[in-house]
Amino acid sequence: MITVLRLGHRRVRDARVSTHCGLVARAFGADGIVYSGEKDEKLLESIADVSRRWGGEFKVAYNKNWRKVIQEFKGVKVHLTMYGLPFQEHVSKLRGEDLLVVVGGEKVPWDAYELSDFNLSVTSQPHSEIAALAVFLDHLFDGKELGKEFKGGLKVIPQARGKIVRTGEEKE
Amino acid sequence: MITVLRLGHRRVRDARVSTHCGLVARAFGADGIVYSGEKDEKLLESIADVSRRWGGEFKVAYNKNWRKVIQEFKGVKVHLTMYGLPFQEHVSKLRGEDLLVVVGGEKVPWDAYELSDFNLSVTSQPHSEIAALAVFLDHLFDGKELGKEFKGGLKVIPQARGKIVRTGEEKE
Repeated sequence: MITVLRLGHRRVRDARVSTHCGLVARAFGADGIVYSGEKDEKLLESIADVSRRWGGEFKVAYNKNWRKVIQEFKGVKVHLTMYGLPFQEHVSKLRGEDLLVVVGGEKVPWDAYELSDFNLSVTSQPHSEIAALAVFLDHLFDGKELGKEFKGGLKVIPQARGKIVRTGEEKE
Repeated sequence: MITVLRLGHRRVRDARVSTHCGLVARAFGADGIVYSGEKDEKLLESIADVSRRWGGEFKVAYNKNWRKVIQEFKGVKVHLTMYGLPFQEHVSKLRGEDLLVVVGGEKVPWDAYELSDFNLSVTSQPHSEIAALAVFLDHLFDGKELGKEFKGGLKVIPQARGKIVRTGEEKE
């Protein structure tokens, strides 16, 4: 089981970035996301809505007390930060573990580094928690998540040009 | 040379997502980004500023006429879209080519699909153009971009816990 913990959500400023974090967590094979920071029902609903329409069993939750989420997590806690050790040198030992993948908001409190088992960087350059999460999960699953099927949802039929989306109800 | 073209930027709504696109393009080894949509000097400056401080030679530009950017590009034009063909089946033939990597905003005009040589998907699930760009570049460079050095900038010294950043001027 892979759970993502998104720290420090701010309702107005982070609406889209936090949404992208949730959608990336789902699309790249995590089992759920927990948001912390400001409570935002609209955000939770938008992720749940994508999940309902596009299938699979992705869980979305809010927890104000992110420290407790990390402390009580049974498994390995990995905080993604540009200041950490190169993730590509550590990812192989994380495969098959229950993971909590912690991704920051704008300012990550010091104890997030302390409470995590690993502080890992996806490059040491400033970029995006969305990108860090996607690339980390892609390496963790060794690219196998790219073809993941999401049961019971809409389905894109890949095309060289154009868009074809099939609803779950249609049968061939 | 790898250039990213970000379509349909909207000044207020896309400020952070477009910034993430630029930072991801730079961090994952592209040579530059061209923004289209609404002109946004603050966006261009924020990317240029990160580039100055963190090193390397990343180029940032704005061009209102994105169609012309695609049409006049000498090289292979790849549009990342969830409706396209799985990128992992096509990325190997793109290595070593001059690439224009086109990433959408909210609504991508139909002719972006037509003007591109390839429409490729990074999963067929809805997620994030930031994530799609990062994972595409990571596969294109086969993970080698993860250790890329950016000359003349700040440098993070990776740590198991904590943050160490060295300025370009310091010598050991």
